[in-house]
Amino acid sequence: MDYQFADRVMGLKPSAIREILKYASDPNVISLSAGNPAPEAFPVVPLRECSTAIMKDHPIDALQYSVTEGLPALREDLREILKRGNIYHENDELIITSGAQQIMDLVSKSLLNEGDVVLCEEPSFLGALNTFRSYNARLRGIPLQNDGLDLIELEKALREEKRAKFLYIIPNFQNPTGITTSWEKRKEIYRLAQEYDILIIEDNPYGELRFAGEPISAIKTLDTDNRVLYCGTFSKIVSPGMRVGYAVCGNELIQKMVVCKQGQDVHTNIWSQMVIHRFLTHYDLSEHLTALRTIYRNKYTIAEEALAPYQELMPYRAIEGGLFIWCTLPDSIPMLDFCAAAVKECKVCAVPGNAFYTDDTMPCQSFRINYSSPTDEELAEGIHRLGELAKGWKDRG
Amino acid sequence: MDYQFADRVMGLKPSAIREILKYASDPNVISLSAGNPAPEAFPVVPLRECSTAIMKDHPIDALQYSVTEGLPALREDLREILKRGNIYHENDELIITSGAQQIMDLVSKSLLNEGDVVLCEEPSFLGALNTFRSYNARLRGIPLQNDGLDLIELEKALREEKRAKFLYIIPNFQNPTGITTSWEKRKEIYRLAQEYDILIIEDNPYGELRFAGEPISAIKTLDTDNRVLYCGTFSKIVSPGMRVGYAVCGNELIQKMVVCKQGQDVHTNIWSQMVIHRFLTHYDLSEHLTALRTIYRNKYTIAEEALAPYQELMPYRAIEGGLFIWCTLPDSIPMLDFCAAAVKECKVCAVPGNAFYTDDTMPCQSFRINYSSPTDEELAEGIHRLGELAKGWKDRG
Repeated sequence: MDYQFADRVMGLKPSAIREILKYASDPNVISLSAGNPAPEAFPVVPLRECSTAIMKDHPIDALQYSVTEGLPALREDLREILKRGNIYHENDELIITSGAQQIMDLVSKSLLNEGDVVLCEEPSFLGALNTFRSYNARLRGIPLQNDGLDLIELEKALREEKRAKFLYIIPNFQNPTGITTSWEKRKEIYRLAQEYDILIIEDNPYGELRFAGEPISAIKTLDTDNRVLYCGTFSKIVSPGMRVGYAVCGNELIQKMVVCKQGQDVHTNIWSQMVIHRFLTHYDLSEHLTALRTIYRNKYTIAEEALAPYQELMPYRAIEGGLFIWCTLPDSIPMLDFCAAAVKECKVCAVPGNAFYTDDTMPCQSFRINYSSPTDEELAEGIHRLGELAKGWKDRG
Repeated sequence: MDYQFADRVMGLKPSAIREILKYASDPNVISLSAGNPAPEAFPVVPLRECSTAIMKDHPIDALQYSVTEGLPALREDLREILKRGNIYHENDELIITSGAQQIMDLVSKSLLNEGDVVLCEEPSFLGALNTFRSYNARLRGIPLQNDGLDLIELEKALREEKRAKFLYIIPNFQNPTGITTSWEKRKEIYRLAQEYDILIIEDNPYGELRFAGEPISAIKTLDTDNRVLYCGTFSKIVSPGMRVGYAVCGNELIQKMVVCKQGQDVHTNIWSQMVIHRFLTHYDLSEHLTALRTIYRNKYTIAEEALAPYQELMPYRAIEGGLFIWCTLPDSIPMLDFCAAAVKECKVCAVPGNAFYTDDTMPCQSFRINYSSPTDEELAEGIHRLGELAKGWKDRG
C-alpha cells in the first residue's frame, strides 16, 4: 500500500551528510565522526559486579514493570547529588529518561505547538535540533562566540521572536564547537531569559569530562523561578548503551513530561536504573571521574600533537573537555568536497560542519572530529591524513 | 515561571480513574488493577545466566552506543521466528522498540496529522489510545462483539471517516475485554482494510499467553501488500522491565519510524537486546512458553472459582488467555461508585471500564480485573471482596 505520512516526516530524506557518514561503518575507514565515549573509560568491572548483585538479589524488581518517573532510589541519589551542586531547587522535580535525547522529545511534546520557535546556538547538536524540527518548530540560530552566545544577537532574537518557547544551550564543551560559555555570559543569559520570560534548556552531557581549566557553575545554579530545565545523562560518564538520562525543572513541567513519557515507553529500562543506583551508592563516583578525565586528557594530547603541524592551514579550537574538536578549512578548500574526499580517498570520516546548522545550506568551512572513540593510533593517523589532504589540496589549488 | 504548554497536553489532568488507581500502591490494598505479568513466570535463572555471560564476554558491546533499528543479531532472530509464523513478508522490515508502547508513538508520529482519525475497538487499551490522543487524533470506537469488531459498524466508520489513517486492533485476548477476534472476522477486517485502503495496527502482546482453545493466525499472515503493522513484545513472555518490543511492516514505514526513534531515544537499551538474543539462541523458548501457560492456566482457574458464586450478579467473560477479565455489574449498581467503594472500604482495586472508552463519559457498567500479578491468595480474596460488595449493594438497593 502507499503510506500516507504525516506532514512532519514528509521532509525527512537522506542528506549529503548521511551519504558521507554511511562510510563510517566500513571497517577500513577511520571514524572521527562518532560521538561515542572512549570505551576504555567505561567502569566495566564495577558495572559487572552491580549487575551480578542485582540479578542475584533482586531479579524480579529488575524485570517487572516500574514507574514512569524513574526508580525512586535513583531519583533520590540524583536529588542529593544535584542539591549539593545547587542544581535542584525548591519546587523542582526530577524525571529519569531513556537517555538525554528523550528529554528533547518530552519537552518538545509538552511545550511546542506547530510554528513555535526554538532559539539555539548556531551551530548546535544535530540530534536535539532534529527533535525540535520533528514538532514543526522553527529554529532560530544565535551565533556563537569564543565565550558563548552572541548576547546582542540573543537579545535581538528574544525581541523579535514572539513565539519563542525556549532557548536550547549546551554551556560546557558544546557539540560541535567545543565552546564553553563563560560565567559572565551564563548570568546574562539567565537575566535575559527572565526579562523576556523564556525557558532555558541547559543540556550538560559533557560537563564532567573536563580535563583542563576550572569548572564553571551551571546556569541552573542561578535559577530562582524554575526557569531552567537542566539535562544530565550517564551516557558519557558511565555508559551510553544503558540509556539513562535525567531532567530537573519545575514540578508542573516535569509532570507533563511524565505523562508524555508514559505514552512513549512507559518507563526507562529498570535494570540500568538499578545498576546505576548501585554504582552510585557502592562505588566512588569522583574517583571514577578522575580516572576518566586522565584518559580523555591523554587522548586529547594525542589529537593536539597530530593537529599541530596543520595549525596554520587547518586551525582548530582548543578545548578543555568534552568529545569534539572543531576544525576550519581555508576558503580555498570547499568543505563538503573535502569531507567527501577524506572518506573516499583517505578513508577518514569527519562530520561536515553544516550538518549542525539550523539551515544546512548555510556556508560553512568547518568540520567536527571526535577524539574519544578511535584508538590512539587511529586518531593520530586519521588526523594526519586529513592534514595531508588539506595540504595537497592547497598546494594543487 | 508560568509554563506555556502545547495545546496537545493542555487537557491532561488527573481523572476520577487515576484517583481510584492511586490507592493501588497502598500495600494494604489488593491490586487487581495492574497489567503486570506474573512474576513467577519470568525466566529468572536463564536471564541471570545470559546477563552474566554478556557482562563477562561482551561488556563494551553491552555498554556502548548502538544502532537505532535494533541489535542486528536480535533482528535476525526475530525475522526467522516471524518468517516461520508467516508474519514477515516480502518488502517488510523490522524495528526494535523500547517496549510495544513506543510503537504506538512512532507510528503516530509517522502517520498522524492533527485531526486525523484512528479507528479502534471500543473499549480498547488506554495506553495506546492516550498516545493517539497526544497527536491530536480523533478516536472513533467500533463496538466489540464476542468474536471481535462489529463489522457493520466498522464498514460504516470506514465509509464515513475520510481522514481515518489506521485501525488499531488487539485480536488476541483484547485489553480490557479479553475478547479474541475470530478467524472469519480477521479475514473480513483485512478485506475491508484493503477495500478502504487503510493501514491495520495489529497489537499482539498476549498471543503467546493462550492457556486454552486453539490459536488463531494473526491478521498479518493474510497481508499481501504490507498493510498490517504487526506489534510484538517480550514484556509478557520474558520481562516488561527490559522494555523490548518490535514492529514489522513495509520498509518505507519502518524507515520513517527509525528516524522518529532516533530523535526519541537513539536506540533501545542494548543490554536487554543482547540478553534476549542470547535467551532466544541458548534456551528453548517453546519450553518456557509451555511452563508459562501452565502458570497462567492455574491462576485463571483460581479466578474462575472465586468468581463463580457471583456469576449471576456480576457476570464475567470467560477467556482463553491474556491477562484480563471483564466483569459487568447490574444496572442497579453504579460502576464508578462501586470501584471507589471497593478500594476505600474493601481495599481492592479494579479498573473502572469507562477508562478504556474513547469517551470516558460514556455509560459503562463493567470493570477490569487482572489475575496475573496478585498472589493466588490475594486473587481469591480480592474477588471475594468485590463479589460480597456487589451482593451487599444489591441487597441494600
